[in-house]
Amino acid sequence: MKTVGVAILGLGVVGSGTYTILRDHRDFYRRTQHVDISVESVLELNKQRALDLGIEESRIADNIAEIVSNPAVDIVVEVIGGVEPARSFVLAALHSGKTVVTSNKELFCKHWYELEKAAKRTNAGLYFEASCVGGVPIIRTLVDGVQSNVITRLTGIINGTTNYILTRMTREGADYASVLKDAQKLGYAEKDPTADVEGFDAAYKLSILSSLAFHTRVPLEKVYREGIANVSAVDIAHGKDLGYVLKLLAIGKNNENGVEVRVHPAFIRKDHPLASVNDSFNAVFLQGDSVGDVMLYGRGAGALPTGSAIVSDIIYAATHADHKYATFKNTMLPEKGVKFVNDFKSRYYIRFTVKDRAGVLAKVAGIFAKSNISIADLLQKGDGDESGTPVILITHETHELAVRRAVEKIRSLPDVFSVDSLIRVEG
Amino acid sequence: MKTVGVAILGLGVVGSGTYTILRDHRDFYRRTQHVDISVESVLELNKQRALDLGIEESRIADNIAEIVSNPAVDIVVEVIGGVEPARSFVLAALHSGKTVVTSNKELFCKHWYELEKAAKRTNAGLYFEASCVGGVPIIRTLVDGVQSNVITRLTGIINGTTNYILTRMTREGADYASVLKDAQKLGYAEKDPTADVEGFDAAYKLSILSSLAFHTRVPLEKVYREGIANVSAVDIAHGKDLGYVLKLLAIGKNNENGVEVRVHPAFIRKDHPLASVNDSFNAVFLQGDSVGDVMLYGRGAGALPTGSAIVSDIIYAATHADHKYATFKNTMLPEKGVKFVNDFKSRYYIRFTVKDRAGVLAKVAGIFAKSNISIADLLQKGDGDESGTPVILITHETHELAVRRAVEKIRSLPDVFSVDSLIRVEG
Repeated sequence: MKTVGVAILGLGVVGSGTYTILRDHRDFYRRTQHVDISVESVLELNKQRALDLGIEESRIADNIAEIVSNPAVDIVVEVIGGVEPARSFVLAALHSGKTVVTSNKELFCKHWYELEKAAKRTNAGLYFEASCVGGVPIIRTLVDGVQSNVITRLTGIINGTTNYILTRMTREGADYASVLKDAQKLGYAEKDPTADVEGFDAAYKLSILSSLAFHTRVPLEKVYREGIANVSAVDIAHGKDLGYVLKLLAIGKNNENGVEVRVHPAFIRKDHPLASVNDSFNAVFLQGDSVGDVMLYGRGAGALPTGSAIVSDIIYAATHADHKYATFKNTMLPEKGVKFVNDFKSRYYIRFTVKDRAGVLAKVAGIFAKSNISIADLLQKGDGDESGTPVILITHETHELAVRRAVEKIRSLPDVFSVDSLIRVEG
Repeated sequence: MKTVGVAILGLGVVGSGTYTILRDHRDFYRRTQHVDISVESVLELNKQRALDLGIEESRIADNIAEIVSNPAVDIVVEVIGGVEPARSFVLAALHSGKTVVTSNKELFCKHWYELEKAAKRTNAGLYFEASCVGGVPIIRTLVDGVQSNVITRLTGIINGTTNYILTRMTREGADYASVLKDAQKLGYAEKDPTADVEGFDAAYKLSILSSLAFHTRVPLEKVYREGIANVSAVDIAHGKDLGYVLKLLAIGKNNENGVEVRVHPAFIRKDHPLASVNDSFNAVFLQGDSVGDVMLYGRGAGALPTGSAIVSDIIYAATHADHKYATFKNTMLPEKGVKFVNDFKSRYYIRFTVKDRAGVLAKVAGIFAKSNISIADLLQKGDGDESGTPVILITHETHELAVRRAVEKIRSLPDVFSVDSLIRVEG
C-alpha cells in the first residue's frame, strides 16, 4: 500500500479540521483509497493547541526548515492564510520538491505565477481545491469534470458571511448593521468583517475560478468589486415585491467582447436556482457550450467542509502520481490579446426620491432617453410626504458607464432629493 | 503534444453529439488540454448517418474487429446502449487493451464485475461518467471530489423524463396519461416509456452511484423500484397544500443498519433544494461526514450534455495515464458482511375513501396504534358524497412493511371504500 506523509502548517480552524479528518479516517482511506496517510509533522506557534489535538510532541516542528528537510513528509498542507509567512513556507516546500495543498485564496490569487513556477521547477504538485467554496468540488469540476466545455459564464454565491447576512435581512426585514452585529456574535462574521462584506474574499475566489474556467490569467486587479455595506432593507423589500432576491454575486463571463469579472450585490429572479441558496451555503452556476447549465451547491466554509476539500486534494495527489493538477495548462503568463471588459452590461434597479413627481419624472425619462437607456419599469412606492416621494426605475440591459453618467445627471436635477440606490439586476 | 485516437460505436443521439463536440473543439483541446484528439473510426450500421456528419468513408468500420485491431485507436466510446452487442464490443475493446468510455448504464450496472476484470487484465481504462446524470460530473465528484468523506446518504432526481412529467403535472394539475402523451410527442419520453416511467433507468443509475458512494457492490436486484404510472394529480395537489412537492427520488443510505437503495415517487418539503429541480433537469444531493450537504444540478440527458461527459472522460483518460479511474477500489466482488435493508423506514402519506367518517376513523386509528405507527396528521379533504369522503393521513417515521400491513387491514374495513394512494414522504 502506498504511504504518504503529511505536514500541516497552522492548526487554526481549518488545520484542526484537516488533522481530525485524517486521524479519524486513516483506516477508511486504507480500505477505500489504498493509501495510508499519516500526519508526520505540524507547525503551530501555539504548541498547546497541537498537544490538545493529541499530536505527539516529537511531531511538532520548530520551524519550516525542519519540515521541508523531513524525508517522511511528502505533502505540505498550508492553512495559515494571508500572504506572509504562508508564501515563504509554500515556496520552501515547493523548492524542496514537496507537493503543496493549500486553502489560501489570497496567496493563490496574488502569487499563482510564482508558486506555479516553483512547482514546475521541482515537479511538485500544487493543489488548491480548498481555496474556493470550501467543500464544494468546484475546482475539480472545472479541471476534470467540465473541461470538455468552453465555459461562457460562471455565476456564484461564493462568500458565506455575506450570504448569511443577506438571507437574514431578507427573511427578517432587518437592516445591515444589526444583522452584521448579530452575525459577529454568532461567529458567522469576523470581528473585522472587511474581507467578507467588502467583497475581497469573493474577488479572490472569482479571480481563481475564472482563470480556470476561461483558461487565461484573470488577475485580481481586473475584478470589479463592490460590497454589501450599503445594501438597505428597503431595497430588499421592493425587490421581493418585484419577484427578485438580493445576493452578493460573483460573475465571470467570457465571450467575443472579452473577459468580464465582477463582484457586487445583485437582484436575481426568485425562480433562479441561485435564489434559494440561503444562509451560509454557497453555490456556483456554470454555463458550458455542451453541458448547458450546471450548478454545484454546498458549504463554503467551516473546519470540516474545508478540511474535506484539503483531504480530497491529499488523496488526489497521492493517487494521481503523474498529474500535478490544476495549473494554467497553456501558459502561466497572461495570454496575449485577452481583453477585459470594464464597461459591462446589466439591467439596473435605481431608487431615488423626488419632490414634485409629475414634473421631474419627465425630466428623468428625458435623461435616460438621451443616454439611449431604455426603461423597463417605473414605479412610485408609497405616497410621499414633505421628505419626498420614492420612485423606482428598472432599465433594460444597458452599459454600466452610461447608467452611472445618467444617475449623476439625475442627482443634479433640482427636484430630485436623492438617488438612494443603484442595484444591478442579473440572471 | 499527446495524440489520442478515438473510435465511436454507435452514431445515435449521444454518438453524434460526441462526434460533433470532438470535431468542433479539436483546437480548443489542443490549446487548453495539450492533447490532440482525433476520431479515427466509427461503427454505425446506418453508414449514411456517418457520411452526413462529414465522416470520411475510410473511417467507417465494417465491424468491431476492425476497430479493436486498429493501432490508431486508443479509446473506444460505446454509446450503443442496451446489453448486447454493447457488452461483446466493450469486452473486445478491453481485451485488446483499449480504454473504454461508455454511457451505458444498463450494461455497466449489470456487468460491472466482468468489465472491470477484463480492464484489469490488460490494464485498460474504464470510464462511465456519462452513464449517470448526463453532463453532471457526479461520478468524478464521488471518485475525486468527496472521496475524503464517508457518504451516508445520496438522494437524486436522476431521470429527466419522469421529472419532466411530474413537473408538468404539478404546474398544470394535469393527469399522468395526458402529460405522458404530450411528452412523447415533444420527444421527452420514448414511444415505449417503460424504462423511464417504471423507474428502471433510475434504478440502473442508483446501483452505480451507490456502489461508488458506499464503496461496496450494490447490485440492481437490491434496488427497490416503483414508477410514476400510478401517480395522481389529486395527490400532487393535496401535497402542494401540505407544503410538499412530488418527485421520483432515487435514495441510497449507508448506516449501521446496512445499505438501503430505493427508487419511488416521494413527497419532499418545498424548501428542500431538490424541490426546485424542475423539467428535465436532474440533481444529486449527497451527505458526507465532513463536507455535509453537497448538491450537483444539471442536464441529465441530451446529445451535448451526455457528449460533454463522454468527452470529459476521454480527456481525463488521455491526461491521467496512471489512473484507470473509477472501479471498486477495494474489491470487485461484494464485500462480505454487507447487509441490505429491505424493511426501510420513511414517513407515509396515505389517502383513502371512507363511507362513515366518524365511525371508521376511530377504527383506522386503532389499526395504526396496534402496529405502533404514530400518526402525525389526519385530515378530511372535501365534504364527501355518496361515493365517500376522502381522508388523508400522514405518519411519523415508521417501517415500510408495518405500513403495508396496516394498509391491508384498513382496506378490509367495511366502511372503507378504497385505499387510493400510499406515498412516501422524505427529506
